[in-house]
Amino acid sequence: MTKPLRLGIAGLGTVGAGVVKIVRQKSELLAARAGRPIEIVAVSARSRDKDRGVNLSDYAWEDDPVALAKRDDVDVFVELMGGSEGSAKDATEAALALGKDVVTANKALLAHHGQALALAAEDKGAVIRFEAAVAGGIPVIKTLLEGLAGNEMTRVMGVMNGTCNYILTRMQATGQGYNALFEEASALGYLEADPNLDVGGIDAGHKLAILSSIAFGTQVNFDGVQLQGIGEITLEDINQAADMGYRIKLLGVARMTARGLEQRMTPCLVPDTSPLGQLEGGTNMVVLEGDQVEQVVLRGPGAGEGPTASAVMGDVMDIARGIRPAIFGRPAHELVAATVATSSAPAPYYLRFSLLDKPGALAKVATALGNAGVSIDRMRQYGHADTSAPVLIVTHKSAHADLQAALAAMDALDVIVGKPVALRIEDV
Amino acid sequence: MTKPLRLGIAGLGTVGAGVVKIVRQKSELLAARAGRPIEIVAVSARSRDKDRGVNLSDYAWEDDPVALAKRDDVDVFVELMGGSEGSAKDATEAALALGKDVVTANKALLAHHGQALALAAEDKGAVIRFEAAVAGGIPVIKTLLEGLAGNEMTRVMGVMNGTCNYILTRMQATGQGYNALFEEASALGYLEADPNLDVGGIDAGHKLAILSSIAFGTQVNFDGVQLQGIGEITLEDINQAADMGYRIKLLGVARMTARGLEQRMTPCLVPDTSPLGQLEGGTNMVVLEGDQVEQVVLRGPGAGEGPTASAVMGDVMDIARGIRPAIFGRPAHELVAATVATSSAPAPYYLRFSLLDKPGALAKVATALGNAGVSIDRMRQYGHADTSAPVLIVTHKSAHADLQAALAAMDALDVIVGKPVALRIEDV
Repeated sequence: MTKPLRLGIAGLGTVGAGVVKIVRQKSELLAARAGRPIEIVAVSARSRDKDRGVNLSDYAWEDDPVALAKRDDVDVFVELMGGSEGSAKDATEAALALGKDVVTANKALLAHHGQALALAAEDKGAVIRFEAAVAGGIPVIKTLLEGLAGNEMTRVMGVMNGTCNYILTRMQATGQGYNALFEEASALGYLEADPNLDVGGIDAGHKLAILSSIAFGTQVNFDGVQLQGIGEITLEDINQAADMGYRIKLLGVARMTARGLEQRMTPCLVPDTSPLGQLEGGTNMVVLEGDQVEQVVLRGPGAGEGPTASAVMGDVMDIARGIRPAIFGRPAHELVAATVATSSAPAPYYLRFSLLDKPGALAKVATALGNAGVSIDRMRQYGHADTSAPVLIVTHKSAHADLQAALAAMDALDVIVGKPVALRIEDV
Repeated sequence: MTKPLRLGIAGLGTVGAGVVKIVRQKSELLAARAGRPIEIVAVSARSRDKDRGVNLSDYAWEDDPVALAKRDDVDVFVELMGGSEGSAKDATEAALALGKDVVTANKALLAHHGQALALAAEDKGAVIRFEAAVAGGIPVIKTLLEGLAGNEMTRVMGVMNGTCNYILTRMQATGQGYNALFEEASALGYLEADPNLDVGGIDAGHKLAILSSIAFGTQVNFDGVQLQGIGEITLEDINQAADMGYRIKLLGVARMTARGLEQRMTPCLVPDTSPLGQLEGGTNMVVLEGDQVEQVVLRGPGAGEGPTASAVMGDVMDIARGIRPAIFGRPAHELVAATVATSSAPAPYYLRFSLLDKPGALAKVATALGNAGVSIDRMRQYGHADTSAPVLIVTHKSAHADLQAALAAMDALDVIVGKPVALRIEDV
């Protein structure tokens, strides 16, 4: 049997412990598939004493992940600590500088430093692999980078934050509002320590930026992702959308256009009969569209010990088998810094606002929309509970700039209470 | 730039022409991704003169695909002729014997000779790759063999014959019977020359046998696939199933059990709310279940020029990038000849039969079922159009042997007209 592949694992949370379990319990299966044994030689974590439900006594312990990454007996540094800066970055850089391969589940690290890390890795002939960073157990990086390598990708979409999808689908199922479901998700431990990473769309935006790079041959550019969280979505929006045959999803969309690279992670309306519309709970879904393959849809668990460890092990097995395509699908120095599209392609929009109960109020809004070139497809005005009434409008397909102009004009009117909510209706 | 990868393509039907177009039109993109140019050096097909909408004048022509496979200037033999015997097999063997890699879309070839071809390839250090053989444009081979390599697979399922799914979903949508939709599919060119390959489940059975091998580390065993076509499915079955919240699908299921390897390609009832139940028209879906990843669902076009060529090019790009894991996921000589499970795991069943209008007739059937250990969950008897009446039964979960015994006992009764139809209700 050929030389074992020796892992050093930094970070022994749920995912790290899951990886250790797989390597221990499936050693024969993994060796048969890889053609060589997979071994753990050393581990590192914050606390040495914590019971992680797995026997670590066979492995060397390192308090310092950087020291772990530099060990002579480590072939692959497995980074499962998280965080875009600090130890995770330092240890990853240390491993790459010594020409060691890195496997990571760290989307923030990749979203912020993907280009620099890829350059550093390629400089030493090493790879950094990150299947677990995007959409948990779904092998979407491999599908996009390898399986669809014969395609010019036309659009990549995804529901990639299970917590947001849980909150949105539970709002519809239970009739409870956003705040109640946010609390429920929090009590269930579904939220990151900084919940804005989830509900603000940042976590999902990191993932989209990584996919964009591979799909379009561009340098990872998280700053170019237009972000909008789900905090403004009301039960009324959910119900009205449902009534019109739509679901509201925190949807990532990336497209290369004549205007530049368009990357959005925003709440959108999608048809309830589409695979994206039918996605319930914490499950993730990625839609990959290419000029040859048309559309491939991948669905699976976006988080959890087993699924995330499965993705990490997929990368480890690839390295053991000598599978090492260019990190973002082509050499890092050939990735271009894409122009960021400042507007998105025309689409119909869903608008909700509160209209003051004044004569001519609706006419003023309609005029503002019309003057901006936004035409109304459907409109509903509800009974006046108070001095103002909710109004819902679905526009015809509108240019993004026209919609922005319309919203600005509406803002300037004296008949609208608060800010209008505008959600894109994505053609999926 | 490093050495080009030189292709010889045998078979210039829709898919072959599609591959030629991609290589011609995307040479820069492919070279950037692969790190080396992809070139076609020679082609072969039955007729040299046919207009295929693509310029072939740059390539050497070979009348004989075996001669093409043996050319010194061909690195990869791309087999797109089809058929499990004859030229496709001869040329593939000739290429492998010379240590040349092979890319094929030929599911019949793999289903019948996969093990022998894999042994021949590995003997020479060559690979045979076949992403396009299963589920068209969906990169399911790669996902299963590489992406989920850290999993012990527990079940693989799939709707992998678009024509059957087209017929079944159109029956429900239009209210037309099987024969009318069979004719429609035929007129649309959706059927193979021998339609039994489609509606008899053979084509989809080939695909399932290939997936089983990778999932469970067994030698491809198409003869071990329990096959049942869709020809007996009536509009009444479709409508009754719908009424109970189910859809009927030609569903492949493979599981490794204590009784051996279970492989079925049969019409099954699945919940209409499941991803499989929601699959409409000619689209394919594969469900991969592993002990770590839980469930990954892949959905995409199962046929057509672009999607199939996309899958072929995925394999070509892998070879260009040096991606060459063991052909069925582990060395061919380590694949075991699996015991074929002679029965399948217990499940509820849907039964339909015509009952003679005689006193005590239904009691006789109920007794026959009860004596065999099959208990009734739901039953419906319809108005008597004639001297016999349709009866539908959904059983509780029943052992396969018990159900077979019940069907035999029902056959021996003098109150049933024709043969009962029994469809498994799969827990998906």
